[in-house]
Amino acid sequence: MWYRTFRTLGYTICRPYATCATKAERFVKTIDPSTLPRGYLVSSTYAGIKNAIRPVTSTNEPSAATTNVPHPQEAPKPDVALIVSSVPAAIAGTFTTNVFKAAPVVHATTALKAAGPNARVRAILTNSGCANAVTGQQGLEDTQTLVNRVQALLSPRNQNAIPTYEQDARSSSTDVLMMSTGVIGVRLPVAHIQRCLEHLAAPSILQSHPDAWLEAARAYMTTDTFPKIRTRQFILGNRRCSIVGIDKGAGMIHPRMTRSGGQLHATLLGVFATDAPISSATLQRCLDEAVRVSFNCISVDGDMSTNDTILALANGQAPFVDLDCTDTPNEWTETEHPDMVNKFAEELKSLCIEMSHLIVRDGEGAEKFVQVHVRNAGTYEQAHAIASSISTSALVKCAMHGEDANWGRILCSAGYASLPASTPAWTLDPSKVNVTFLPPPHQPDDLAPLPTLVNGVPQAVNETQAKKLLSYEDIYVDVDLQGGSWGSQGRSEATYWTCDFSKEYITVRW
Amino acid sequence: MWYRTFRTLGYTICRPYATCATKAERFVKTIDPSTLPRGYLVSSTYAGIKNAIRPVTSTNEPSAATTNVPHPQEAPKPDVALIVSSVPAAIAGTFTTNVFKAAPVVHATTALKAAGPNARVRAILTNSGCANAVTGQQGLEDTQTLVNRVQALLSPRNQNAIPTYEQDARSSSTDVLMMSTGVIGVRLPVAHIQRCLEHLAAPSILQSHPDAWLEAARAYMTTDTFPKIRTRQFILGNRRCSIVGIDKGAGMIHPRMTRSGGQLHATLLGVFATDAPISSATLQRCLDEAVRVSFNCISVDGDMSTNDTILALANGQAPFVDLDCTDTPNEWTETEHPDMVNKFAEELKSLCIEMSHLIVRDGEGAEKFVQVHVRNAGTYEQAHAIASSISTSALVKCAMHGEDANWGRILCSAGYASLPASTPAWTLDPSKVNVTFLPPPHQPDDLAPLPTLVNGVPQAVNETQAKKLLSYEDIYVDVDLQGGSWGSQGRSEATYWTCDFSKEYITVRW
Repeated sequence: MWYRTFRTLGYTICRPYATCATKAERFVKTIDPSTLPRGYLVSSTYAGIKNAIRPVTSTNEPSAATTNVPHPQEAPKPDVALIVSSVPAAIAGTFTTNVFKAAPVVHATTALKAAGPNARVRAILTNSGCANAVTGQQGLEDTQTLVNRVQALLSPRNQNAIPTYEQDARSSSTDVLMMSTGVIGVRLPVAHIQRCLEHLAAPSILQSHPDAWLEAARAYMTTDTFPKIRTRQFILGNRRCSIVGIDKGAGMIHPRMTRSGGQLHATLLGVFATDAPISSATLQRCLDEAVRVSFNCISVDGDMSTNDTILALANGQAPFVDLDCTDTPNEWTETEHPDMVNKFAEELKSLCIEMSHLIVRDGEGAEKFVQVHVRNAGTYEQAHAIASSISTSALVKCAMHGEDANWGRILCSAGYASLPASTPAWTLDPSKVNVTFLPPPHQPDDLAPLPTLVNGVPQAVNETQAKKLLSYEDIYVDVDLQGGSWGSQGRSEATYWTCDFSKEYITVRW
Repeated sequence: MWYRTFRTLGYTICRPYATCATKAERFVKTIDPSTLPRGYLVSSTYAGIKNAIRPVTSTNEPSAATTNVPHPQEAPKPDVALIVSSVPAAIAGTFTTNVFKAAPVVHATTALKAAGPNARVRAILTNSGCANAVTGQQGLEDTQTLVNRVQALLSPRNQNAIPTYEQDARSSSTDVLMMSTGVIGVRLPVAHIQRCLEHLAAPSILQSHPDAWLEAARAYMTTDTFPKIRTRQFILGNRRCSIVGIDKGAGMIHPRMTRSGGQLHATLLGVFATDAPISSATLQRCLDEAVRVSFNCISVDGDMSTNDTILALANGQAPFVDLDCTDTPNEWTETEHPDMVNKFAEELKSLCIEMSHLIVRDGEGAEKFVQVHVRNAGTYEQAHAIASSISTSALVKCAMHGEDANWGRILCSAGYASLPASTPAWTLDPSKVNVTFLPPPHQPDDLAPLPTLVNGVPQAVNETQAKKLLSYEDIYVDVDLQGGSWGSQGRSEATYWTCDFSKEYITVRW
């Protein structure tokens, strides 16, 4: 089977990266079919989007159209995926705050707003290759055309519709959403995608098998070097609940057209589908919190996309553990089932963090995975701002690439962070700052933490230990502000994840 | 003479950079002695600071101490410079807003605050090689020790003091300031610097010759590839006024010790000395405005240093044009001499802009000089925030390096700029944005502007023209927001200057 052709090497976090296998070999894991959520079917195919679109140019080089055609004997990577819930699912979403929102983002946010707290969706259509961004009114119409077509195909009036579909009074016309990633400023090749939709929505094509999920994850990929998919399973009350997460990392979509005319674009897309019975409003709050400490805490190059979207679906199809007792309520809400919701929120958060790390690990040119933990700040927002400033500093990222325990650059970037206001005002106290490099968990060398700055005073550094610590692929930086101007009242912390800046990044991003 | 050994090639801005001479050959210009301000003397020498300091390590490699010793036949670059005014000069300063301010920054800001609006200085002592940052109370004491020593040497009670010195009742004990740049977290080698001071302050060593000024500019350099010095001369009323500016660009100070232990650091230092008669308070306002639109509008790598300092001195020694009419007031102030002050402010601003550009051109690994002009925003601060966001985007900087007219990345980075609030609120309107690449001034190819986005709609791009425009060393990006949500009321503009991101940057910053 395709997904088994990746060797799962049992990646050891503390092995020096230079000796490791490819990222695909290390980070693609076999999916246990029993951990996939119930009531979802997926399909994906190759629509030829990259070849269909041309950048807006006045000259067309003859070779441009054929550049991305794969070798005849090589199956092209799928670029369209459909995820269908057998019943209308509760839906939640978080979207880019970029002013220039792509058409699918505008469509989804408008649809969710119109649908209100009981919003339901039946399907998520995703394409890679074209972001449908900066495409104006035409872009919105293109998204709507495709969404309408999927809705019609999944409608119970369509005699070919998937048999498990159940009519639900709550479902509305907003029940298909779309996500796009790829080249911006170019119209979506609607005809190319449209002619795949009947195939994608056919009952014989929609599958619940791990192969189908992995292929869907591949359809999301742009310059990602591996498909990103993980599952979680847990017992909640009398239900065995599962979540599957797919995401894709920041990546250049048009590697052969990087010169003028090719509009490269990086986007974060993610979808989390669960069979837990959660209301839309509750799911939204769980997702907000999960994204706040996962996807909103990663950085590859500091550039926020026009298309960033994370969607979560909950269809309530989780099986009962004790079949004699099936009187679980239809949907859990925070007020009525706080324990269930809290446990679900923790599981979703944990999965979001794991999935966000995969994006950092697959960051363009990334050779290091760096965790920046800022402790004992005034507020979470202040700790987050400082961790973000450190994690996006080009100088820090170059130092990590060079395996240099450079506390000076860390301190400097912490010092110019733009701090959100708080009452009372909170400030960093230079004489209280500790910067320590921590050994990665489970490292075999039994290294001790390496303090480089204690109470604002530079420390004598054991060069041998520093060299060893920084040679790991995973670097853990601990910044303890000891409460700053609030003293013992300053106890907030935030964790950020970033990668290093390598020459490879410049090459990829030319 | 040393400064004439650089060929001044009459740099043509539109020549493709690949065919150009070195940056030193292109950007070091001969100084006309008659354009230097009156009443200033300078000296510089090699104190061996880089060799004197050792990073805080537990192991000392034998080779470390000798790494930076120059070839015996090669004169070492000076690393200490003294600029002395023959009379106490009005003083103004702008300093880094980084929380972790270096000792000389704390010393200077404290001294200027204590001295009040009539602050006067006699001398500026500058060293490169050691930033005296993150050195705590000891660092402050070290700065004070050196400042005290220079004061004693320049005191009229010292019989060797320079003969032109005139006692001034207004001068106070705060009349020597210091600037430092280099390695951080390491104590200043006070003894090494101190033993040079008598030499530096000796009347036979202090000079007003262009050679002496150029050597002082060299003393400021860290990884700068050329000394940065320019002059301005202009008639104000009955006075022929001059300004000389020296600055140094962001640079790694310890290229041989970039691995753990070496704490690399980038700093912007600048000094502007004029013989115009300007009061300290007025000089401060002129400097604030000049820095706001020059040094605060450049970016090399987006990292703000702990040592950034710009100082301005005005000693009132400008010669009279008409010697029969010498009744000019002692000092010009904004309220009493607005025309004089406005003209002076324009000259200072123009010089600051020129000097700030030299830093961008000498940016580490920089091969392109990029001007980002944002027009028709709500407020200056909003235009500045958008221009800054575009100029610090790694993706935009990579695109400029790759000579890619990538309006998508420009738009995207404009879209996530963190906008300062205004009343009423102002927002970007995606349907009004124009992005145009402009031909550099005086380019011989007579190229037309290249609109890539008009009213938010991507334009067909003439590939040949785009290729030509982007092949220039200087790239001009014009972003017209057409007033955004304020319509015709949105008329503010800001200009930012940045460089590209090259593989060379990663190499330098390892």
